[in-house]
Amino acid sequence: MNILLKVAYMGTNYHGFQMQPSCVSIEEELKKAVEKSVMHKVKLYYSGRTDAGVHAQGQMVNFYTDTKVEVKNMARIINYHLPEDISVLDARRVEEDFHARFSAKGKHYKYIVYNSFHRNPLYLNRAMHYNYNVDVDRMQRALDKIIGENDYKAFMGRYAVVKDTIRRIDKIEVKRVGETIEFDFYGKSFLKNMVRIIVGTALEIGRGRLPEDCLYNAMKSKERIKAGPTAPGCGLYLMEIFY
Amino acid sequence: MNILLKVAYMGTNYHGFQMQPSCVSIEEELKKAVEKSVMHKVKLYYSGRTDAGVHAQGQMVNFYTDTKVEVKNMARIINYHLPEDISVLDARRVEEDFHARFSAKGKHYKYIVYNSFHRNPLYLNRAMHYNYNVDVDRMQRALDKIIGENDYKAFMGRYAVVKDTIRRIDKIEVKRVGETIEFDFYGKSFLKNMVRIIVGTALEIGRGRLPEDCLYNAMKSKERIKAGPTAPGCGLYLMEIFY
Repeated sequence: MNILLKVAYMGTNYHGFQMQPSCVSIEEELKKAVEKSVMHKVKLYYSGRTDAGVHAQGQMVNFYTDTKVEVKNMARIINYHLPEDISVLDARRVEEDFHARFSAKGKHYKYIVYNSFHRNPLYLNRAMHYNYNVDVDRMQRALDKIIGENDYKAFMGRYAVVKDTIRRIDKIEVKRVGETIEFDFYGKSFLKNMVRIIVGTALEIGRGRLPEDCLYNAMKSKERIKAGPTAPGCGLYLMEIFY
Repeated sequence: MNILLKVAYMGTNYHGFQMQPSCVSIEEELKKAVEKSVMHKVKLYYSGRTDAGVHAQGQMVNFYTDTKVEVKNMARIINYHLPEDISVLDARRVEEDFHARFSAKGKHYKYIVYNSFHRNPLYLNRAMHYNYNVDVDRMQRALDKIIGENDYKAFMGRYAVVKDTIRRIDKIEVKRVGETIEFDFYGKSFLKNMVRIIVGTALEIGRGRLPEDCLYNAMKSKERIKAGPTAPGCGLYLMEIFY
């Protein structure tokens, strides 16, 4: 049977989701825990990688098993074998041809910025600290101009190897929540570092150091150098995958 | 001059606020950082202790200094000497007779419960995990009955040594916020473990394992044994001191 897991993790202590030689990854910890639970080797299929330090509240992972463990007990048993900073929130049986990545219709990422003068330990490793005044409305206007199906090559990490850099963003919302600024991204899929580069650029626009049309112009130029800095991974959360 | 600091910390790695021999405390770290900043020994006066594992967003601390460091630079300089999980959010000059504890008119504590079946790493060390269904309205009714000026001896930690156990609670509010339940306590001052014992008892009432009038009856009995369990320190936040 094909089992789909909803997984939450704090990415602080990992080199990212994907398994890599001689690096600690969430995939490796999850694979070990699943294998201990179902008592055989498994291959994990997941909705997408997350970078080092990036968190998730709704990473989706499926695998095939012939275990006798009941589905309703599976999350609890896998959690027993997982470290404290990774947890299965839900496990359910899905159609045999369901694939965590290929079956996905869209994704929701959230980026959190702690926007106050002094650092706050509550947000350590959980938000980007940005201590400049920013104009949220100005950022929203700049972000609205890059919505749609576009070539986002300018917002791709330098070392990514992808031929097709066309993606679709359905919505980007930015709002102030207490002392934080939250960016919500909804889209079909995203390039490596894309959300973080857009946030890093938007903040410079919000602060007034880059012109309001900088995001749009950078996108059109297809040149990474025209966009602003990459915001750190610690502020990024993979929230939900839509099927 | 008399300087008042607003201090935030994550209490996870400390044995509480107050300095103790051979224990790591927030007071000790803060005292060292202030002394390095003002270049002389200081005595810290604070609004109240917090227990091991308890957090703060608004602990207030004052000290006397004849330093030449300008007040507007003080928070930044002290933060330079503090570990990542403690931070000064604000520093300002106050009247010579101002005392962080004795000048206080009231306090706001928040207690956060993560109320979902499986544990979630996002709330690790930051909320109590409670995986039973609870009736928030029933808890609110029970909490409303213990408001006012009362002898709260029943809600005091066993090893506390206090003669006068009369305190004043102005308001306790409980509400569901997403997957968490937040308790907000407003009052003049609180006994050791008081908030945590009230929350621990309220949750058992909300779950239906204790009767709705249990909190009121326990208070009236003045016996600790009549109340429910003490909720863990990790869910408690000292939010604000009112002057």
